[in-house]
Amino acid sequence: MKLVYTGKTKNVFALDNGNYLLRFKDDCTGKDGVFDPGENSVGLTIEGVGNVNLRMTKHFFEKINAAGIRTHYVSADLKETTMEVLPAKVFGHGLEVICRLKAVGSFRRRYGEYIEEGADLPAYVETTFKNDALGDPLVTKDGLVALGVMTEQQYDDIKAMTQKITEVVADDLREKGLVLYDIKFEYGYAPDGSVMLIDEISSGNMRVYRDGKYIDPMTLSELFFA
Amino acid sequence: MKLVYTGKTKNVFALDNGNYLLRFKDDCTGKDGVFDPGENSVGLTIEGVGNVNLRMTKHFFEKINAAGIRTHYVSADLKETTMEVLPAKVFGHGLEVICRLKAVGSFRRRYGEYIEEGADLPAYVETTFKNDALGDPLVTKDGLVALGVMTEQQYDDIKAMTQKITEVVADDLREKGLVLYDIKFEYGYAPDGSVMLIDEISSGNMRVYRDGKYIDPMTLSELFFA
Repeated sequence: MKLVYTGKTKNVFALDNGNYLLRFKDDCTGKDGVFDPGENSVGLTIEGVGNVNLRMTKHFFEKINAAGIRTHYVSADLKETTMEVLPAKVFGHGLEVICRLKAVGSFRRRYGEYIEEGADLPAYVETTFKNDALGDPLVTKDGLVALGVMTEQQYDDIKAMTQKITEVVADDLREKGLVLYDIKFEYGYAPDGSVMLIDEISSGNMRVYRDGKYIDPMTLSELFFA
Repeated sequence: MKLVYTGKTKNVFALDNGNYLLRFKDDCTGKDGVFDPGENSVGLTIEGVGNVNLRMTKHFFEKINAAGIRTHYVSADLKETTMEVLPAKVFGHGLEVICRLKAVGSFRRRYGEYIEEGADLPAYVETTFKNDALGDPLVTKDGLVALGVMTEQQYDDIKAMTQKITEVVADDLREKGLVLYDIKFEYGYAPDGSVMLIDEISSGNMRVYRDGKYIDPMTLSELFFA
């Protein structure tokens, strides 16, 4: 098992069967010792957080696979804090796909003239390039195609998959009295170009509220597995 | 004739026939006495600039109308520096529609990781809200629909019209040895919701190059009517 990539929150190993093994770490992104999923550098280490994130990821990816939506997920080993995944290429130098059910965060900052904080959105999907210096710039479908990052078909597939996956997650949270406001995903593609959900789905990927109040990721993980 | 709006570069009068009259002023947007079409406050006054802008606007709007693309243009009176236009509502609190044939300006700043300065773009169309404080934020088709600013059909019509109009302008400039890199437009809609090109098309709306060198708007106007 060969280490092929050392990430901020995961290490990646190549497996003999052609798949990859992701080892979730206890390192979290954040700033000044405060956990912040929106930050892009490691800010602190929280014992057990890798395991909790893997548990939630396993939970959701198994649901999403069962719903017939393609993901890179093969299996998870909670004792080893590892997840086996299919090989996939990422789009460009990293692209985030966001689905918004309520207007908060950067959407509300950009378009506050047009919408109230917390107003409903129709599972609106948008894509941003990962780029700290540029504040993760928004890019349109036409932009992604013009820049050669993906095809129109890939964009349409990602948008449809994102809306379905968001519904799976939102339904699941609703059963626990939790309301999903927005969620971010990453996608990759197989050698034949077909799109699949990659990376993880854990409390740091989503904004969740209960009784109109924001729940921070650590508390969300606790409530989720209570 | 009743003054209904005092703009930065135009005054607007209501006509008895239900149309409006735009009087082009010699005030230009800019900063510290330097003309800059990208600025949103009046920076200087240049004698005769209103007339030059109206001449170019008349030239292009008549070509675009002749090409069967709907605009608000009815007629122009160069002596009075006025243009008669059809009534139209604007989208939201002001929306700019940009068509890019080459990667320069804010597109290149946003996506410089993915494209070289001056590289070809396939008549890429994007929309930004006019908002100085927010740096004119980009908004996607889905965003415009989610925010209730326009319908999908209106967006598709605007995109198709923008690509056709850009071709008209680029072809015209090419005959004079000039290369259009990008251009911005404004659109409005009639009471039945149908979309039309509004505002003006003058040298301040476009980036034009000759032999690989940028030509400022004042020089462009001179070359255009030379």
